[in-house]
Amino acid sequence: MEYKLKAIALDVDGTITDETRRVCVNAVNVIHRAENEGVPIIFVTGNVICAAKIIAILLGTTGGLVAENGGVIESQGKIKILGNITECQKAYEFLKSKFEVTNVELSDQRVSEVAIERTITEELVKETINDFNVVVYDTKFAIQLTDPSVNKGSSLKMITTDLGIKTDENLAIGDSENDIEFLRVSDVKVAVNNAADELKDIADYITEKSYDDGVAEAIERFIL
Amino acid sequence: MEYKLKAIALDVDGTITDETRRVCVNAVNVIHRAENEGVPIIFVTGNVICAAKIIAILLGTTGGLVAENGGVIESQGKIKILGNITECQKAYEFLKSKFEVTNVELSDQRVSEVAIERTITEELVKETINDFNVVVYDTKFAIQLTDPSVNKGSSLKMITTDLGIKTDENLAIGDSENDIEFLRVSDVKVAVNNAADELKDIADYITEKSYDDGVAEAIERFIL
Repeated sequence: MEYKLKAIALDVDGTITDETRRVCVNAVNVIHRAENEGVPIIFVTGNVICAAKIIAILLGTTGGLVAENGGVIESQGKIKILGNITECQKAYEFLKSKFEVTNVELSDQRVSEVAIERTITEELVKETINDFNVVVYDTKFAIQLTDPSVNKGSSLKMITTDLGIKTDENLAIGDSENDIEFLRVSDVKVAVNNAADELKDIADYITEKSYDDGVAEAIERFIL
Repeated sequence: MEYKLKAIALDVDGTITDETRRVCVNAVNVIHRAENEGVPIIFVTGNVICAAKIIAILLGTTGGLVAENGGVIESQGKIKILGNITECQKAYEFLKSKFEVTNVELSDQRVSEVAIERTITEELVKETINDFNVVVYDTKFAIQLTDPSVNKGSSLKMITTDLGIKTDENLAIGDSENDIEFLRVSDVKVAVNNAADELKDIADYITEKSYDDGVAEAIERFIL
């Protein structure tokens, strides 16, 4: 089957990086090649926008950015905050009153959601803040309390619309639970071999290799 | 001559990246190899600390960080603000009253210095704000107004001290005028082939190759 894919939506931590968040050479190479072929890459990450922008600059990607799990985007050079942090902060304060929890680094820059260290399980967080209108993700790097009205998928659609592309013309590659929505809105849904089971369940294709090798495998198969 | 170099101090923009600020595979590879050999890398950059931290995470470096041209450091996991922004802001306001100048992106995160777009020459900036106690650098990516009591060299020394290393036990590689001080305090002073003339003048070694290829050449020659 021939694919006419026009963009690549790519998670960062655990997808183009290894488990220590270090980017690997295979990912750098295949990203450069895709961009050179005119297929823009859109990073879709739980990181803050400052971090996402630096990653995009360092890797030379041009498609735009989804940061803070959809809470913040950069599209056509403009940054927009889409998620409302208020309820997340209330939920976090409540959680803090019950358990020892801490914000992750750079939390003062997080503008649309709250991210906490994984010193507590996702299940216990969900149970404790059940009455708050907040969606909880465990990304394996942090536990994130997010505005339900935004997610990686809804925000990716805004970026592809601005690029003049439909999301069902893009390839999506991820590794975590919070990548489900942006894979769902995409044409070709890829989970890297190290991905969480919930993501593999909805993927069209699970790579044989892990981390950046999985990314290279998928991009070479479907794009290059 | 055998070198017993214990750390590598490395500029980012124009040194491990190309002129578009994109990191290249040769730099990624040689950085991984040096860290695997137990030679920590310290990034020494004009970027803000958030950006520097992400670069360090993405590239897997462990030596610490000099950000904002020495105005902010991260050493042994702790962030310290060393530069005083007040005089820089006054100088900037004065400059703005005379010419059309704009802050670079992410300027709200800059805490110890002011960085402006290169829509004005370094000479004109220096001339205009001559009465202010500020040092001006043109890094080829921005023009930076900085606190004279800190620079990349003085801040690098703080980090190497915390690592238990003397700066005359490290290799330093840079490309710009604002890298002079940290090369000066280091044992082996390398300018990449694309470096500014003022830096080449004080270097022990100018690489034959440019950008990341120059970094690979220097690290392979002096460390690996």
